[in-house]
Amino acid sequence: MAYKEQYPSALLTEAVEAISSLPGVGRRSALRLALHLLKQPAENVHHFTSAINDLRDGVRYCSRCRMISDDDVCSICSDKSRDQRTICVVESVRDVMSIEATGQYHGVYHVLGGIISPIAGVGPSDLTIKELTERVNALEQPQTAEVILALSGDVEGETTAFYIYRQIEASGVRVSALARGLGFGDDLEYADSLTLGRSITNRQVFKP
Amino acid sequence: MAYKEQYPSALLTEAVEAISSLPGVGRRSALRLALHLLKQPAENVHHFTSAINDLRDGVRYCSRCRMISDDDVCSICSDKSRDQRTICVVESVRDVMSIEATGQYHGVYHVLGGIISPIAGVGPSDLTIKELTERVNALEQPQTAEVILALSGDVEGETTAFYIYRQIEASGVRVSALARGLGFGDDLEYADSLTLGRSITNRQVFKP
Repeated sequence: MAYKEQYPSALLTEAVEAISSLPGVGRRSALRLALHLLKQPAENVHHFTSAINDLRDGVRYCSRCRMISDDDVCSICSDKSRDQRTICVVESVRDVMSIEATGQYHGVYHVLGGIISPIAGVGPSDLTIKELTERVNALEQPQTAEVILALSGDVEGETTAFYIYRQIEASGVRVSALARGLGFGDDLEYADSLTLGRSITNRQVFKP
Repeated sequence: MAYKEQYPSALLTEAVEAISSLPGVGRRSALRLALHLLKQPAENVHHFTSAINDLRDGVRYCSRCRMISDDDVCSICSDKSRDQRTICVVESVRDVMSIEATGQYHGVYHVLGGIISPIAGVGPSDLTIKELTERVNALEQPQTAEVILALSGDVEGETTAFYIYRQIEASGVRVSALARGLGFGDDLEYADSLTLGRSITNRQVFKP
């Protein structure tokens, strides 16, 4: 705090406080960024802050999958070439972008907006699980549709997956989960035993 | 660029572009920050952007030393307990803050606003060297006043120091430079030979 009081101007102090509220940005980085912004032309700085305000104020979410979208229905949900009967359930917008980047998935998504975590105070009602259940229940011939639980492999992820499974199993929809195992290029010697154990149990037919 | 086109919304794309224009912030970090800001209450985001706009639009510089200041004359220049006849010349606002943090200096400053660098296209007229010369020439009895050249030890710093020295030497003011040598706790074995050489040449009386 002694360092803080040495800022030469109240405006600079305010800006550093604001910037250092960002995750992963300490006070020193915040000062560096503030002094950088000071050196830029005013219109560049206004463009920077407007882009952020516009995002926050103008953001919309797809009414079906809750992905960030410019329209009521996102480009993935409205894409007729994608399999609308395969729903990949993910925690966040970023997960959708990661899976899209693989180019391997041609179904649609459902963004939960978080993960069940009693420690963080996040319960099922804070997520879009009810909306997912309604989507699944609205599917015709659910036996031929599929829900992929693409959640992280930690306790929260497993808990959330289990909770969702309980909500949708009665519909008869097929439920799958991401394959767990050694990553490509992973060394057997350094794999943790849980992952290696699952890799053996879930071994796959060798396809040369 | 393929990655960029996968952003699900134009607003998000704009915000990520803007945030990744900051130094040291890549596109991945920018996306992380943009999604973080999306999760915050709108008033927090507006406070964040206002603090930055206020800094850029409202910033003032001390009319004497060019330090960032809320007033026409900064708190250091207007501090009667400080030695107004010892002027420490630094490159940037951050340097002033670094020296202030040492608590070892009780004179005033002069912020150049950069360093002479032909490669970066920065010449003497882009800096506040003229203002410094005027300040020095206005000193009464300059022989008993002092200018400390506290510039970095690289080629640009040495060039700038030499240029300033030429501008102010005729005034008769005493000119000094930061001591160069081994840092506290530095290991002799790992010091570069230039630094070690200067440390030997400029050896000081041992004061136990």
